Amino acid sequence: MSAARASRLDRVRAEMARQGVDALLLSLGADLPWLTGYEAMPLERLTMLVLPVDAPATLVIPELEAPRCEEDPDAFGLLPWRELEDPVGIVTRLVGGRRRLAISDRAWAMWVIELQGRLPGAAWSRASSVTGALRAVKDDDEVAALVRASEAADRVAAQLHAGEIPLIGRSEAEVSADIGRRLLDEGHQRVNFAIVGSGPNSASPHHDAGPRRIGPGEVVVCDFGGTMGGYCSDITRTVCTGTPPSQMRDLYAVLQEAQAAGVAAARVGTTCADVDAATRRIITDAGYGARFIHRTGHGIGLEEHEDPYIMAGNDLPLAPGHAFSVEPGIYLPGVFGARLEDIVVASGAGPRALNSVDHDLVTVEA
Amino acid sequence: MSAARASRLDRVRAEMARQGVDALLLSLGADLPWLTGYEAMPLERLTMLVLPVDAPATLVIPELEAPRCEEDPDAFGLLPWRELEDPVGIVTRLVGGRRRLAISDRAWAMWVIELQGRLPGAAWSRASSVTGALRAVKDDDEVAALVRASEAADRVAAQLHAGEIPLIGRSEAEVSADIGRRLLDEGHQRVNFAIVGSGPNSASPHHDAGPRRIGPGEVVVCDFGGTMGGYCSDITRTVCTGTPPSQMRDLYAVLQEAQAAGVAAARVGTTCADVDAATRRIITDAGYGARFIHRTGHGIGLEEHEDPYIMAGNDLPLAPGHAFSVEPGIYLPGVFGARLEDIVVASGAGPRALNSVDHDLVTVEA
Repeated sequence: MSAARASRLDRVRAEMARQGVDALLLSLGADLPWLTGYEAMPLERLTMLVLPVDAPATLVIPELEAPRCEEDPDAFGLLPWRELEDPVGIVTRLVGGRRRLAISDRAWAMWVIELQGRLPGAAWSRASSVTGALRAVKDDDEVAALVRASEAADRVAAQLHAGEIPLIGRSEAEVSADIGRRLLDEGHQRVNFAIVGSGPNSASPHHDAGPRRIGPGEVVVCDFGGTMGGYCSDITRTVCTGTPPSQMRDLYAVLQEAQAAGVAAARVGTTCADVDAATRRIITDAGYGARFIHRTGHGIGLEEHEDPYIMAGNDLPLAPGHAFSVEPGIYLPGVFGARLEDIVVASGAGPRALNSVDHDLVTVEA
Repeated sequence: MSAARASRLDRVRAEMARQGVDALLLSLGADLPWLTGYEAMPLERLTMLVLPVDAPATLVIPELEAPRCEEDPDAFGLLPWRELEDPVGIVTRLVGGRRRLAISDRAWAMWVIELQGRLPGAAWSRASSVTGALRAVKDDDEVAALVRASEAADRVAAQLHAGEIPLIGRSEAEVSADIGRRLLDEGHQRVNFAIVGSGPNSASPHHDAGPRRIGPGEVVVCDFGGTMGGYCSDITRTVCTGTPPSQMRDLYAVLQEAQAAGVAAARVGTTCADVDAATRRIITDAGYGARFIHRTGHGIGLEEHEDPYIMAGNDLPLAPGHAFSVEPGIYLPGVFGARLEDIVVASGAGPRALNSVDHDLVTVEA
């Protein structure tokens, strides 16, 4: 087992003891690969690591997936279950008399319900209560992986800026697929999303890239990311297919100033809420406060969204190794919108932005 | 609202009444798009349809995703929640005094746990208990969508057979990425998986396509699928990069006979267990019974795996519109393995195989 993983297991067990959690039950989501290197398949056959605070861990795994996973005697044993066996019964047996159980946030609800039927006396909580704060602090290898993923996303954004990804006359869906392929070409193993919102659709923050054809002189928000070496990228750039309307230029100047202020505020010791306030204040002062309808950012790592969330109410002070997005947006419904996003890592030397591709409102005449 | 969707809502409410379910809570997974046409984003902001048996349905949705979804007054209202609001509280209020609740199988566990904290008297079950049997029977439009997805997957398999997807000298991961791109080129919107298992890895049914380079004279199992027009494809073909070893030829002949027997057995009225038995008997009689370590197949539709499961113990008789895979496999650990898979729809006119690309063990000299 790698030293990093051994240290993670030790820290998780210490935190379980501190919180009074008797066993973690880890399935889908990033806690399992973070601790074992193995990622469960998102299928109806149960994969679950039973990690008691006081006993060795066991990975319950479908027999036909067991060859994908290497046992690690220092960390966990493998317990393959055969096709007609009852994996919930196996997990129940491994849990034994333990009653304070924490399950992966992203495990399927069906497993909570099935397990609750067999463990009627148990008290349930979310595994992220134990793992979230630990996973949020990236070690040097993890930061290096985030850097590689962000650099690859930057290369795709540079292609967008350079007009190598044609926009005018293509549908949003076509552009989205093109961006996705380029993420793969640049080294990502998986595309997680590629939002392309053009014209009035740019005012819908999580717009589905659809059949709308992009015209000249329009605003286009492109927000995309994938997974590379296990770690995620996430970048947003807003472009115009022609000279931007003057209202857009004004709006974007505010947005760009707000985003830079958010990055600059992301110093060790500053709270997540204060980073959010740094972007929001500038947008609010410019009169767009009601048009910035989401938090400033989210943590990023093995998952696209994870702790720490950069939002009002989160009084967590940033620590070295915290990695997160800074992505304010301004949206005028029915007209247009804009968002600007970098990934940032907090460090003793100050905030480190992992995306360096042009932050201006670039005109793409293609 | 489409007539199909109205009919689905009626049938779901009738089944809820029959089973004594007071409200469905639908989030991730296919129940929500099947009933509303809207697919929740797999993110930490809660999207949940609260569907009481006795009152109109409400889709609780993050404000920044609300523009993606069109309200349908005949089916459901929209209730956007703002960034700092408490969506669990909103769902709790909509549930009201109802106590027998069924939640999407694939909803995140964190929502069950959060909701249980607010609804201490509730009894929880899986939404698939209500929706599974209904969703398993595809209407004509759904079958047509499955046909289109299968035909696209067939075209990629034909490219594999024709040597247009080079194998020798490439890594499994490279071949997997190539297959994925071709699925997109052939009209899929999303690649769900592209298993490539070469040499001894072909004996691992759910092998991760990895760095292993494919050599000449090897067995390669390719199992891939994606989503096209909302519906899934799933196909497996096993090829050899050179003349197959004689043991492989013998094994594959058994497998091919078993797969054809499974398809032929898939008649209306035959149970799922009997279809499984039809493939298994031939493999067992040939002495490979212990090497066929999984069920014969799974239902397919909006999800890659759904009801009906083609396995021992499932006494459900096939009905017209049931759609599922028939995919026996034989795996000799450390040596090689093979699997052969088609999607099949049960109909009054007999089993309809949606994949027609060559079923033989094709030699690919590329």
